[in-house]
Amino acid sequence: MGNYAFYIAAGFAGVLALLFAALLVKRINGVEPGNSKMQEIAAAIHEGAMAFLGRQYKVLIVFVIVLGAIIALVGHFAQSDRPDSLKPATAVAFVIGAFCSVLAGNIGMRVATKANVRTANSARTGGLNKALSVAFSGGSVMGMSVVGLGLVGLVVVILLFPGEYGVINGYALGASSVALFGRVGGGIYTKAADVGADLVGKVEARIPEDDPRNPAVIADNVGDNVGDVAGMGSDLFESFVGSIVAALILGAAIPALNNQGITGAGLIAPLLVAGIGTVASVIGGLFVKVKEGSNPAKALNIGEGIATVLAIVGAFAVCYFIIPQTFTAGDKTFTNMGVFLASIAGLVAGFFIGKVTEYYTSADYAPVKEIAQSCETGAATNIINGVATGMASTAIPIVIIIAAILVAFHFSGLYGIAMAAVGMLCTTGMVVAVDAYGPISDNAGGIAQMSGLDKSVREITDKLDSVGNTTAAIGKGFAIGSAALTALSLFSAFSQSVGLAAIDILRPKVVAGLFIGGMLPFLFSSMTMKAVGRAAGKMIKEVRRQFTMIPGIMEGTGRPEYSKCVDISAKAALKEMIAPSLLAIVVPVVVGVIPFLGKEALGGLLAGTLVTGFLLAIMMSNAGGAWDNAKKYIEEGNHGGKGSLAHSAAVNGDTVGDPFKDTAGPSINILIKLMTIIALVFAPLF
Amino acid sequence: MGNYAFYIAAGFAGVLALLFAALLVKRINGVEPGNSKMQEIAAAIHEGAMAFLGRQYKVLIVFVIVLGAIIALVGHFAQSDRPDSLKPATAVAFVIGAFCSVLAGNIGMRVATKANVRTANSARTGGLNKALSVAFSGGSVMGMSVVGLGLVGLVVVILLFPGEYGVINGYALGASSVALFGRVGGGIYTKAADVGADLVGKVEARIPEDDPRNPAVIADNVGDNVGDVAGMGSDLFESFVGSIVAALILGAAIPALNNQGITGAGLIAPLLVAGIGTVASVIGGLFVKVKEGSNPAKALNIGEGIATVLAIVGAFAVCYFIIPQTFTAGDKTFTNMGVFLASIAGLVAGFFIGKVTEYYTSADYAPVKEIAQSCETGAATNIINGVATGMASTAIPIVIIIAAILVAFHFSGLYGIAMAAVGMLCTTGMVVAVDAYGPISDNAGGIAQMSGLDKSVREITDKLDSVGNTTAAIGKGFAIGSAALTALSLFSAFSQSVGLAAIDILRPKVVAGLFIGGMLPFLFSSMTMKAVGRAAGKMIKEVRRQFTMIPGIMEGTGRPEYSKCVDISAKAALKEMIAPSLLAIVVPVVVGVIPFLGKEALGGLLAGTLVTGFLLAIMMSNAGGAWDNAKKYIEEGNHGGKGSLAHSAAVNGDTVGDPFKDTAGPSINILIKLMTIIALVFAPLF
Repeated sequence: MGNYAFYIAAGFAGVLALLFAALLVKRINGVEPGNSKMQEIAAAIHEGAMAFLGRQYKVLIVFVIVLGAIIALVGHFAQSDRPDSLKPATAVAFVIGAFCSVLAGNIGMRVATKANVRTANSARTGGLNKALSVAFSGGSVMGMSVVGLGLVGLVVVILLFPGEYGVINGYALGASSVALFGRVGGGIYTKAADVGADLVGKVEARIPEDDPRNPAVIADNVGDNVGDVAGMGSDLFESFVGSIVAALILGAAIPALNNQGITGAGLIAPLLVAGIGTVASVIGGLFVKVKEGSNPAKALNIGEGIATVLAIVGAFAVCYFIIPQTFTAGDKTFTNMGVFLASIAGLVAGFFIGKVTEYYTSADYAPVKEIAQSCETGAATNIINGVATGMASTAIPIVIIIAAILVAFHFSGLYGIAMAAVGMLCTTGMVVAVDAYGPISDNAGGIAQMSGLDKSVREITDKLDSVGNTTAAIGKGFAIGSAALTALSLFSAFSQSVGLAAIDILRPKVVAGLFIGGMLPFLFSSMTMKAVGRAAGKMIKEVRRQFTMIPGIMEGTGRPEYSKCVDISAKAALKEMIAPSLLAIVVPVVVGVIPFLGKEALGGLLAGTLVTGFLLAIMMSNAGGAWDNAKKYIEEGNHGGKGSLAHSAAVNGDTVGDPFKDTAGPSINILIKLMTIIALVFAPLF
Repeated sequence: MGNYAFYIAAGFAGVLALLFAALLVKRINGVEPGNSKMQEIAAAIHEGAMAFLGRQYKVLIVFVIVLGAIIALVGHFAQSDRPDSLKPATAVAFVIGAFCSVLAGNIGMRVATKANVRTANSARTGGLNKALSVAFSGGSVMGMSVVGLGLVGLVVVILLFPGEYGVINGYALGASSVALFGRVGGGIYTKAADVGADLVGKVEARIPEDDPRNPAVIADNVGDNVGDVAGMGSDLFESFVGSIVAALILGAAIPALNNQGITGAGLIAPLLVAGIGTVASVIGGLFVKVKEGSNPAKALNIGEGIATVLAIVGAFAVCYFIIPQTFTAGDKTFTNMGVFLASIAGLVAGFFIGKVTEYYTSADYAPVKEIAQSCETGAATNIINGVATGMASTAIPIVIIIAAILVAFHFSGLYGIAMAAVGMLCTTGMVVAVDAYGPISDNAGGIAQMSGLDKSVREITDKLDSVGNTTAAIGKGFAIGSAALTALSLFSAFSQSVGLAAIDILRPKVVAGLFIGGMLPFLFSSMTMKAVGRAAGKMIKEVRRQFTMIPGIMEGTGRPEYSKCVDISAKAALKEMIAPSLLAIVVPVVVGVIPFLGKEALGGLLAGTLVTGFLLAIMMSNAGGAWDNAKKYIEEGNHGGKGSLAHSAAVNGDTVGDPFKDTAGPSINILIKLMTIIALVFAPLF
C-alpha cells in the first residue's frame, strides 16, 4: 500500500463527478415542469417509483443485515493472517458498498422522475435541443452518481482497511446485492407492468399505448425508471466496482509491480484509470449538444467519442507514469505499455460489442429487416427468426471478448485481464448517462401522450426515444460484456484466494461443476421469465377488474386507480425475486462446501455460469431488441404497417422479447458477477 | 488384444439382431398393404424417401471420398508407432463405419415406408393389437439394423486392425459423418416440408392436416421417415458405436485390466455388454403385445422393462466373469463390481432422463398443462412459457448426468465413465425400435386420412401416434443424454491421445476455447433453424404456385405434383446442411492447429460445446415437445378446443417448436459427438 495521495486523487475524481451531478440536478430543477396535468402525471410516476424503492429498501435492509451478520460470523471464525482473508470487518465494507449503490440509485431515479416531465415540457416549449439537454442531464445524474459514489465509497473502504483485500471484497459484494434487487426485482417489476398494460389495454380493450384510461399505465412508466434507470445503474455500479476490486487483488499479488518505483503502483493504476475515465465522462457529457433538426444520436456519439479518447490518453498517462517500465509476474516480464494495451483492449472490446449489438438490433441493418420480413408469414416464423438471430448474434461478441482476454493476458497476465475490465468500465459514467437518457425520453413521451400535448411534442420525444432504443441495446451489450470481463477477473482472484493452481476439466468434479454452472443461467432465466408471467397475470386481473368496476373509466370520466397497479407490480417483483436470488447465493456456497465437490467444482461452476450466462444474456437481449425494432419498423409503414397481419405477428415477437431483453437477459449479468463475488468472499470456507 | 472368441461372440449378437430384423421384414411383407389408393399413397412416400436417400448418397459419397482422402493423407504423414496413431488405414475403417450406418438407415427406412401402409391396413382389418404389432415390427427393423450392423462392422474393424485404436476411431468418424447427413439434413428436410405444408395448407387454404389436395403432404410424410426414422437411427448408431470405441481406448490404457485373468478384458467387456444388451433388446421386443382396448404405452414399457432387466443381468455377468476382481488404474484400485456399477449408472441415468423428458413434455403433467393455460392469453405468453419450461427442464437431467459421471468415475475412473455410456446405450436396439414406431404410426394415420378410410381406423392410428409422441420425446432425451456421455468419454480418450495431463480453465487459452465451444451450439442452432426457414419458404412458394396453377386442385379433381415438393425439400436440405456441417468439422481442426490456441484450447472448446450443447438440445427438444402436446391437449377440447383463440396461440407455439425439437435440438447431438471424434482422429496434428 502506501502513497495515499493517489488514492485520494481517485476519490476526488469521484467527488468531482458528484459535484457535477449536483450542478445538473440544479439545472434540471430550474426547468419548468409544464402544466398541472403534466405535473400531476409526473408526480404519480415519481411517487410510484419512490414507493417501490421504499418497499425495496425494507426487504433490502433485512437482506443486508442477515447476510452482513453471516459474513461477520463466518469472518470471526474463519479469519486468518492472509491479506485476502474474510474478516468481521468485511461486513462493514459490505454495508458501505450496499449503501453507496442504494444512494446512487436513489439519486438517479429521483432525478430521472423529475427530468421526464421537464423533458416533455422542454420539447413543448424549447424544441429538440432543449429536450435532449434535459433528458441527457437526467441520465448524467444517474451516471455520475454511479461512478462518483462507486469511487468515493471504494476509496473510503481502502483507506479504512488498507491492504485488507478480504475486507475490500465486501464492498463489491454489497454492490452486487443491491444490483440483485435492482436488476432482478426491477426487471420483474417493469415487465409485469408492461406486459400487463399491453395485453389488457392494447390487445383486449384496443386503447393505444400510454393511454391515461389504462390503470396500469403509471406502473408501466414507473417500470421504465425502476428497470432501465435504477436497475441498469446498479448493474454497472457493480461491474465498475467489481472490476477495480479484482484488479486491486491481482495487482497486489505481483510484488515487482508494487515495490519498485511508486509504491503500490499495481493498486494505484486501476483506481486512477477509473478516476480519469470518470473525469473524461464529465467532460464528454459537456459536449452532448444537438442542433434543431439534426440527429440526437450524433450528439451522443460525439460525447462518447470525446470521453473515450480522453480516457485512452489518461490510461496511457497512468501506465506511463505510475507502472514500472518493466516488472516480472510469475516467470514472465511485462512492461507498463503492456498494461496500457491491456486496458485499451477492454475499452475497444466494449466499443465493438456495442457496435455488434447495434447491428443485430437496429432496423438499419439486415437482421432486423429479415425479422420484419418474416412477420409476413406470421408470429411463429417471426419468433423462430428472432431466436435464431439472437443465437447468431453471440458469435462475434464471443470472438471480441476472447481477443480482448488473449491480448490482455499476453501483454500483462491475469492483471492485464483485470485491467482490461477496468479499461472497459472506466467510461461507465458516460455509458450510464447515455443509457438512462432513453427511459427518461420514453417517459417524457408517455407524459406528453397522457396529458394530451400537441402531436409535435410527441414527435420530438419519439425521436429522442428511438435513439434511446438503440443506445439501450448498446448499453445492454456493454453491460453483459463488462459483466463477463469483471467476472473473469474476479474468478482469477477467487482461484488465487482459494489456492487453486489449476482447475482441470479432465477431472470429473470440475466437469460436474461446469455442467451445474452452465445450467444455472437456464434455470435462473426460466425462473425470472415465469415470475414476469405470474406478476403480469395479477396485473391483468386488476386492470380487467378496474375496466369493469369503475364507472366511466372508458369514457375518461372515471379515474383509474393507478396506485393499485403500482402496488401489485412492486409486491410481485419483490416476492418473485426471492427464489432466483437464493439460487445465485446458495448454490456456489453449497457446491463449495460439499466434500465430494469442493472448491475445484466451484471453479468449474463459475466458469460454466460465465460461459452460458454470457451467451444466453446476449442471445436474449439481442433477440428482444431485434423484435422490438422489427415491430417499430413495421409500424413505420413497412410490410403493411400498423394493423396488418405482419404487425400483429410483430407485436407477438415484441411481447416475447420483453422479458427476454429486460428481465431475464440483464438479470444474468448479476448472476454471473454475484456468484463469483460470493465465491470470492466466502473463499476461506472452501 | 487376444481372445478373439469374445469379439466374435459380440459380433454374433449383432448377427442375431440382423437375423431377427430379417424375420421381421418377412413378417411385415406378409401383411396385406390395403386397397389400391392406400398403396398408391404409400408408394409415393416410399419413393420420395428413397429418392432423398439416393440424392443424399450422391453428396455423401463425395464427402466420404474427400474426408477419407484427407484422413489417408494426414495418416500417411502423421503416423507413429503409438497404437492410437492416425494411419492411412483409418480411412478404411472410416469408410466401413459410414457404409454400415448408411446400410442400417437404408434398411430401416425402406421397411418403415412399407410398414406404414400395412399398419394402416391392419388397423382397418385387425384392430389395435395387429396395428401396433406391425408398426413396432417396422420400428424394430430399424433398431436391430442399427445395433446389428453397428456391432458387426465394429468387430470386423477390430479384427482387421487389432490393437490399432487410431484406426478404430475412423469407424466412429464414419458413423458420425452419416449421422451428420441423417440428423442435420434429415432435420431440415422434415421441418421444411412440415412447416411449408402447414403454413399454406392449414393456415392459408384452411384444409386439414394430411389432406391429399396439399401438394406438400407427401413430402411431409416422407419427412417423418427421413428425420425421425433414418435421422434418429443414424444418431444413435453413432452414439452406440462411439461409446464402445471410447471404452476400448480407455480400457486399453489400463494394463492391469488386460494382463491378468482374461487377456484384453478391458476391451472385451464393453463389446460384450453391448452385445448382451442387443440380445436383451431382441427378447424385450418379443414381449411387445397389447390387448384390444388397453394402452399401447404399457406394451412398449413392458418390452423396454424386460430388455433393461436382462441387460443389467448380462452386464453383471460380463463384469463378474470377464473383468479381474481387482485391478489398478493410475494410483487407484478398482473392482469388477465397480465396473458393473458404472455401467448401471449409465443405464439408470438414461431411464431417468427419459422420465424427466416425459414429465416436461406430456400433457399428463403440470408443465404442459400450464403452457396450454397460457395459450388463453395469446401466442406470446405461450412462447414465453414454453421457452421457460424448456430452460427449467435442463436442471434435473444435468443433475442426473453428473450423478452418473461421478458414480462411474468413483467406482472405476475414466474407464467407468465410458462404461456408463456403454451401459446407457446397450439397449439401443429397443430404444430405436420404440422411437421409430412413432413416425410409422404417424404415417399410417396420414395414409388413412389421405385414402379416406373409416374414422375408426384413424382413431386407432391416433392412439398409436399419441403414444409415439411421448416415446419420441423420451427418445430425444435419451439421444442427447447418450450423446453427452459418449462425447465425454471420447473427450477423455482425446486428452489421453494428445497427451494432455490437465486442461486448466485458469489458462486464458482454455477459457478462449471454452467460450468459442460454448458459442458453437448457439451458432449451429441458429444456422439450422434459419435453414428450415429458407427451405420452408421455397416450399410455401411451390405450394402456392400449385394451388393457383393446377386447375381443379382444390376440388380434388386436379392432381397435385407431389414429387416437385419432395424434390424441393431434398434439394434444400442437402444444400442447407453444408454450412453448419463445415462449422462442426472445420472449427475443431482450426482451433487445434492455430499456434496461440492449440490442443489445450481445443480441449476447452470440446468441453464448452458439450456443456452448452447438452443444455440447448434439452431445452429446445423439451420446449418443442411441450408446445406440441399443449396444442394436442387443447385440441382435445380444453381451453376452448379447436378453433378457439387459445388453439391458434397453441398452433403458433407448435410451429416454433418444430425446428426446435426436430431440427436444431437433435442436430446438436451430432455437433457434440462429431467435433469430439474429429478432434480424436486428428489428434496427431495438434
